[in-house]
Amino acid sequence: MGRQKDYLEKLSCFFQIRNLLLRQALAECLGTLILVMFGCGAVAQRVLSGGSHGLFLTGNFAFGFAAILGILVCGQISGGHLNPAVTFSLCLLGRERWRKFPMYFLFQTIGAFFGSAIIYGMYYDALLLRPGSFNVTGPNNTAGIFATYPARHLTLVNGFFDQIIGTTALIVCILAIVDPFNNPIPQGLEAFTVGFVVLVIGLSMGFNSGYAVNPARDFGPRLFTAMSGWGVAVFTARDCWFLVPIFAPFLGSILGVMIYQLMVGFHTEGEARDKKQGTVQENVQLANVTSTNNSKEATKEIY
Amino acid sequence: MGRQKDYLEKLSCFFQIRNLLLRQALAECLGTLILVMFGCGAVAQRVLSGGSHGLFLTGNFAFGFAAILGILVCGQISGGHLNPAVTFSLCLLGRERWRKFPMYFLFQTIGAFFGSAIIYGMYYDALLLRPGSFNVTGPNNTAGIFATYPARHLTLVNGFFDQIIGTTALIVCILAIVDPFNNPIPQGLEAFTVGFVVLVIGLSMGFNSGYAVNPARDFGPRLFTAMSGWGVAVFTARDCWFLVPIFAPFLGSILGVMIYQLMVGFHTEGEARDKKQGTVQENVQLANVTSTNNSKEATKEIY
Amino acid sequence: MGRQKDYLEKLSCFFQIRNLLLRQALAECLGTLILVMFGCGAVAQRVLSGGSHGLFLTGNFAFGFAAILGILVCGQISGGHLNPAVTFSLCLLGRERWRKFPMYFLFQTIGAFFGSAIIYGMYYDALLLRPGSFNVTGPNNTAGIFATYPARHLTLVNGFFDQIIGTTALIVCILAIVDPFNNPIPQGLEAFTVGFVVLVIGLSMGFNSGYAVNPARDFGPRLFTAMSGWGVAVFTARDCWFLVPIFAPFLGSILGVMIYQLMVGFHTEGEARDKKQGTVQENVQLANVTSTNNSKEATKEIY
Amino acid sequence: MGRQKDYLEKLSCFFQIRNLLLRQALAECLGTLILVMFGCGAVAQRVLSGGSHGLFLTGNFAFGFAAILGILVCGQISGGHLNPAVTFSLCLLGRERWRKFPMYFLFQTIGAFFGSAIIYGMYYDALLLRPGSFNVTGPNNTAGIFATYPARHLTLVNGFFDQIIGTTALIVCILAIVDPFNNPIPQGLEAFTVGFVVLVIGLSMGFNSGYAVNPARDFGPRLFTAMSGWGVAVFTARDCWFLVPIFAPFLGSILGVMIYQLMVGFHTEGEARDKKQGTVQENVQLANVTSTNNSKEATKEIY
Repeated sequence: MGRQKDYLEKLSCFFQIRNLLLRQALAECLGTLILVMFGCGAVAQRVLSGGSHGLFLTGNFAFGFAAILGILVCGQISGGHLNPAVTFSLCLLGRERWRKFPMYFLFQTIGAFFGSAIIYGMYYDALLLRPGSFNVTGPNNTAGIFATYPARHLTLVNGFFDQIIGTTALIVCILAIVDPFNNPIPQGLEAFTVGFVVLVIGLSMGFNSGYAVNPARDFGPRLFTAMSGWGVAVFTARDCWFLVPIFAPFLGSILGVMIYQLMVGFHTEGEARDKKQGTVQENVQLANVTSTNNSKEATKEIY
Repeated sequence: MGRQKDYLEKLSCFFQIRNLLLRQALAECLGTLILVMFGCGAVAQRVLSGGSHGLFLTGNFAFGFAAILGILVCGQISGGHLNPAVTFSLCLLGRERWRKFPMYFLFQTIGAFFGSAIIYGMYYDALLLRPGSFNVTGPNNTAGIFATYPARHLTLVNGFFDQIIGTTALIVCILAIVDPFNNPIPQGLEAFTVGFVVLVIGLSMGFNSGYAVNPARDFGPRLFTAMSGWGVAVFTARDCWFLVPIFAPFLGSILGVMIYQLMVGFHTEGEARDKKQGTVQENVQLANVTSTNNSKEATKEIY
Repeated sequence: MGRQKDYLEKLSCFFQIRNLLLRQALAECLGTLILVMFGCGAVAQRVLSGGSHGLFLTGNFAFGFAAILGILVCGQISGGHLNPAVTFSLCLLGRERWRKFPMYFLFQTIGAFFGSAIIYGMYYDALLLRPGSFNVTGPNNTAGIFATYPARHLTLVNGFFDQIIGTTALIVCILAIVDPFNNPIPQGLEAFTVGFVVLVIGLSMGFNSGYAVNPARDFGPRLFTAMSGWGVAVFTARDCWFLVPIFAPFLGSILGVMIYQLMVGFHTEGEARDKKQGTVQENVQLANVTSTNNSKEATKEIY
Repeated sequence: MGRQKDYLEKLSCFFQIRNLLLRQALAECLGTLILVMFGCGAVAQRVLSGGSHGLFLTGNFAFGFAAILGILVCGQISGGHLNPAVTFSLCLLGRERWRKFPMYFLFQTIGAFFGSAIIYGMYYDALLLRPGSFNVTGPNNTAGIFATYPARHLTLVNGFFDQIIGTTALIVCILAIVDPFNNPIPQGLEAFTVGFVVLVIGLSMGFNSGYAVNPARDFGPRLFTAMSGWGVAVFTARDCWFLVPIFAPFLGSILGVMIYQLMVGFHTEGEARDKKQGTVQENVQLANVTSTNNSKEATKEIY
């Protein structure tokens, strides 16, 4: 036992990364990998089993719980964003430094890439056996397991608004959950609550285009599918749809930050600021009173 | 970073609303918007996808989790009622001031109005493509996505009782959850528990007329549908059904308050009062004893 | 506002019940009412809608969440048993007084009776419209909404063991959750955990006879159906099946208590007892040491 | 009441086991029994009812919640592993002693054996009535209720990787949840979170071979089926598939430990170690400063 501990200690020292940003980015990478692995895995299970081992609801649950687990894995280290749109919102509000944004974006995308690769490996037999599996369009296509594609009824304009609305809803809820002046849940349950947000977005906003609301979650797996059998069609399909889940979420972030701040955030912040200033003033007054008292007492003591 | 913080501070000061009631009403508005957006969104997803992207169960989950998120967004500021019937119950019990009631009612209805407007925008393409979509009755009607309509088997009398029973159940459970003398859950989990109440009401009381149990959640979206394509039929359909989910919930509130207070509330309150009076009396006795002791000690010290 | 508070205070004093056992029994009554109302309501919704508004899974969720809410409503006052078999187990273990048992049993049954009455009233129209609705057997029967009846494949012997196994599983889990020496969950979450137990029993033990595992939950609604249209057949059907969910759960309680105590309970209790005695002995030793020290110090001070 | 307590006390003393390892193994046995009883029970309910009383989703929920309850029953005593692969991972990391491993493995397998025996007894009638029920292959086979068998599309190699990936995912998430340096959830909620991990693995990795990811959960029930009607075919079927869920999970454990430690664990541990050493150094410095101060003060006092 003692020898094992020494050995583990040595390993730990050898592999320890001391650069904080790199460590955080690695944690984000693992968290996003978990999100995409479980989420896309559930979609794969539903699609490949022809519905016998899953429902649309199943995928919603999987993405929700996968978000919980992804956040739990990396939350203490990197904040557990798992989504460049979340990082962007927190940067907008000055709660994270801007230089984190590109680093997180990159590693979140890498995590999503490997998450979908794992699911590809896991369901390799089932994918191969399915005729017409490696088409991007068509009835038996499986590209939708990994990245999102718009439903037939959706125009590009509506799809763009769909992604903006979904991300706005996500950001408003997340801002409420992590607002230091409006935090109603016990510490440590943020991950669960954010998971419920992801779940409910899937329940109510998933019909149009599969609720990506996350540039990394969509682009990483899409890149993977382009490289492993589906080809460049994953980018060109439906008038270059792939650009929508990359750019719309950032617009949604801005909108979400604005709505939350205008309707709730500014007022609670302001109240906290007012109280603090009030306390400072009171303290000043108190100090005056005390000093007066002291001087009185001092006077008393003299006599 | 410093400049960004200054700018945000300025924005915050500029937009800060200092009127407490208005701030609370705005928060209720956002909370109810979230409730209706996610809840009606899930119904829209089920109806418009023809069942492939949702079940009736999905809508129950969505309304339950939407209630959780709505309460979390505004709970610390306004109490997170999201429902005029809840506000009414708390006013009846003297826990909220009566002047809050009309203000909350108005803003909850506005929130529900915009919540359904967002879903309308999000699923605009899917609504347009569906033949017969903008009818209030008929097999392909979509009015039921936004407001509630009674099932075919339901008479108006039974429907009225249905809404009363549903709201009574809601209020009894909520009163138990927020009762200061009977509060068994860790602070901060009230929102989750209320969400479960909404979920379970949907699971067991949703067949008759879609469990509105909330005048704002039903009237706001109904007004929106009247203004955006479905016309005045949303009010006249089924013998002016729209009046039922407006008035029955308030009767249910009164009944719920009575049942909870008679079976649990009055007794726990009374016990707390008895204990307090007991403590006061004991304190008086203690004070007497102490003073006697003191006088004894004083007497001792004299000698 | 002041006048309203005075009035509420007077009402509270007038209706306050000071007898603790009656108050607890009333709370159990309300809790069981909520359990049966939501649980049977979900079954009614599934059966009467022909599956469009519910699945078997829906009823499992409803019973689980209804148990959570029932326990939350009365847990602080009466312990939130909602089930005579639970009361019986806690009496067996000496954690509740035996005289509580008949009182709780009676009021739990009354609560279940009224819980099913509410569902009957709520779905009156739907029940009336269904042909053959008031038969106890037959394809369209609705008696199974309220009380439990065995599936076709089930013999009475297997059904008896089914109820024993179900109750044993319930009691083992509940004992672990409320064990003071083995309590791993944060205070206040017991209700949620017990609800999950009820949910999972429904998911895995509901096929044979609908998992009553609760004499009050089964007998109350059965009595109601006998009195309101289904007649005496609810008792005579399937060789007097109604006796099974009344008597088997108590045998299951005994078995559950034995299994939990032999495999976990006795050892944790014993360990706690050992530690306590150890502490006492240590204290005695400490006291000796201290007194020796004191005498030494006293000796020192003398010199 | 007094006599009952004495009697219970005597029973407790008589049956108390003082050997810690045996007590822990017994607790693991009960916990795994609960996991398998509820989990396999849900599969039995789905298969035997032909889908009317369950979905694939139902089994996922049942295994997830069963894991929660199993962990709650034994977590405080034995750690609540319920899975030899989890015990193995914690031994690898030096958090549990290696001699626990064979003992836990044995009792977890015994628990799983009896868990499936209970389900066999509970659904005995339904199993007997089903034609072709006791075949291991064929459309009506019921062997899959108890142990896992690969789907038709699965090759042995892919199945092996499937089990490795599933266990790796499980172990990474569990390590994050129980990591003392990266523990974001309130104490007592670990069981719930691990249950969600099991649930989500079922939602996304259950199509290939039914996500055993647990040698004890798979081998115990398989042994039971071999002994009670299905015969030796449960071992020989599909090229001795039964070896895969026994050996692959341990490889997955090693992989999971490596991934978590390299991406998160070593860095957080290292940081904690750095901080500790920093504190020690600071303390040394502080002590120096203090002693200097002391000597100064001492000097002062001299004068």
